[in-house]
Amino acid sequence: MSAQPTPLAIVGVGKIARDQHIPTIAASDAFTLAATVTRHNTLPDVPNYGSIAELVAGQPKVRAIAICTPPRGRIALIRDAVAHGLDILLEKPPAATVTEAEAIVAAIAGSDSVLHVTWHSREAAAVEPARAWLQDRRIARVTVSWREDVRVWHPGQEWIWEPGIGVFDPGINALSILTRILPHPLSLARATLAFPANKAAPIAADLVLDDGTDAAIAVGFDFDQRGPQTWDIAIQTDDGVLTLTAGGSAMAVDGVTQAVPDEPEYARLYARFAELIATRQSDTDLQPFRLVADAYLLGVRREVAAFDWNG
Amino acid sequence: MSAQPTPLAIVGVGKIARDQHIPTIAASDAFTLAATVTRHNTLPDVPNYGSIAELVAGQPKVRAIAICTPPRGRIALIRDAVAHGLDILLEKPPAATVTEAEAIVAAIAGSDSVLHVTWHSREAAAVEPARAWLQDRRIARVTVSWREDVRVWHPGQEWIWEPGIGVFDPGINALSILTRILPHPLSLARATLAFPANKAAPIAADLVLDDGTDAAIAVGFDFDQRGPQTWDIAIQTDDGVLTLTAGGSAMAVDGVTQAVPDEPEYARLYARFAELIATRQSDTDLQPFRLVADAYLLGVRREVAAFDWNG
Repeated sequence: MSAQPTPLAIVGVGKIARDQHIPTIAASDAFTLAATVTRHNTLPDVPNYGSIAELVAGQPKVRAIAICTPPRGRIALIRDAVAHGLDILLEKPPAATVTEAEAIVAAIAGSDSVLHVTWHSREAAAVEPARAWLQDRRIARVTVSWREDVRVWHPGQEWIWEPGIGVFDPGINALSILTRILPHPLSLARATLAFPANKAAPIAADLVLDDGTDAAIAVGFDFDQRGPQTWDIAIQTDDGVLTLTAGGSAMAVDGVTQAVPDEPEYARLYARFAELIATRQSDTDLQPFRLVADAYLLGVRREVAAFDWNG
Repeated sequence: MSAQPTPLAIVGVGKIARDQHIPTIAASDAFTLAATVTRHNTLPDVPNYGSIAELVAGQPKVRAIAICTPPRGRIALIRDAVAHGLDILLEKPPAATVTEAEAIVAAIAGSDSVLHVTWHSREAAAVEPARAWLQDRRIARVTVSWREDVRVWHPGQEWIWEPGIGVFDPGINALSILTRILPHPLSLARATLAFPANKAAPIAADLVLDDGTDAAIAVGFDFDQRGPQTWDIAIQTDDGVLTLTAGGSAMAVDGVTQAVPDEPEYARLYARFAELIATRQSDTDLQPFRLVADAYLLGVRREVAAFDWNG
């Protein structure tokens, strides 16, 4: 970590910026919040600009941005940031379409900017220990169970039902963990998607993934889960059963809880961004997003009961 | 063109191999058909092998393959071909999923093999003339109308209704032309997909594309078109109207037919493959496939009447 914190601007000041990015940067030795770029939600005592060009003109010391805008239209922000040599942290999901996501990565290749395509769930405390534990084991069966009540976690947020989102908003977090901890690359074998009669995005999804071995990999996402809420992954190997619970923050082997480091996801995320900046490396992994696109592409659709926020 | 034709093997001997690849290779100075790799449909007087490893062992002179298998599972063939230093022509679509398509391109990067991700409609006679004509014009409006009767063109072929296919089987040809002739890269703004009540793939689709300018780009695909069948693209510019008809094989400007070269698509396709081999360059453009995936990802679905082959 350098002695001098990097002056950073947040682009897009919505819920995720307020809940996670702003407090994390405030607690970080590696970054200071120098400015925002937003049309609506300015912060008291933080200079705000209407565009990246205005940001660079007004705050030439800013070296990095964190993009927290909705996924649509980020490629234009990325091109502006690259043109001004800024380093970029990208909140998940990276883009609204596969074309835009690949264009973002292509815009970075050969540029002077560092790009961190982030997946905050990969920073959950048990993810790296799980990855290390799995590395040399043969995997027989993987079961992902990501089941939550959208009424509780996204009350009244209609954007969650826009095309391409739905239950994949939390589901992509599970896929980001899975693609990180399993030793072989994953592809989609088949999927079924359940669309509420009155919504353009799925409320539930079942995916079967293939890692090129005989492992059976079943992924279940549900946005209509009453009672216990689960963000769990169970992995049966030739040498024990690994269980990741609470979104990857806790871990057990054969039922025995394992000690894991105690650090919040976004603290680790920003520490990783600082490391990428220091070493001038980008991390542009799009695997989780591609798997979501593949689930939409190959998923067999069925219609289920209309969704009701008060149902 | 080298004096010595390149010995080539066809992998997957189905309808497209018989209709196009075999007669094209027979008429080509650049290639000879040295072998096939298929489990079922061998050709008289052409040696056949069960795998690429067996092909290489039995026919060490073979330098190239044309992959004409169904899209699922091609990544394994690509890896085998790369391991043996073979050059590869890939029939469209490149893969069944975005993940596999990107893995195919990644497998080629840094290898000794040439990969030609082909889009046969790009070889239609008027495509390059249209591209040249459009290059310096400002585009105001693009209308794609790809409307055919699936009962006529794919009689009884149930594979056409597998998830991820449907009307995008011909539609991806239109997208391959559009992404070639328009001067700016395209992304998907929005889409609607019409699914027959009894099928897992769309029978019709309407796409709105965005090229980063004010151009209005509307794409209509229909698989249930009775009467006139159309594979047409009309482009209104600041300096005349271009019309591509008959799948890109004919062209008019302001209603006046333009002369275009008279050469079949697959003859041009194999000539281009020979050129890529001679210059050791790959052509791995996945844009049309990504736009299809984006249409599935963002497309708003509506259910339409059940499809009947005899309807």
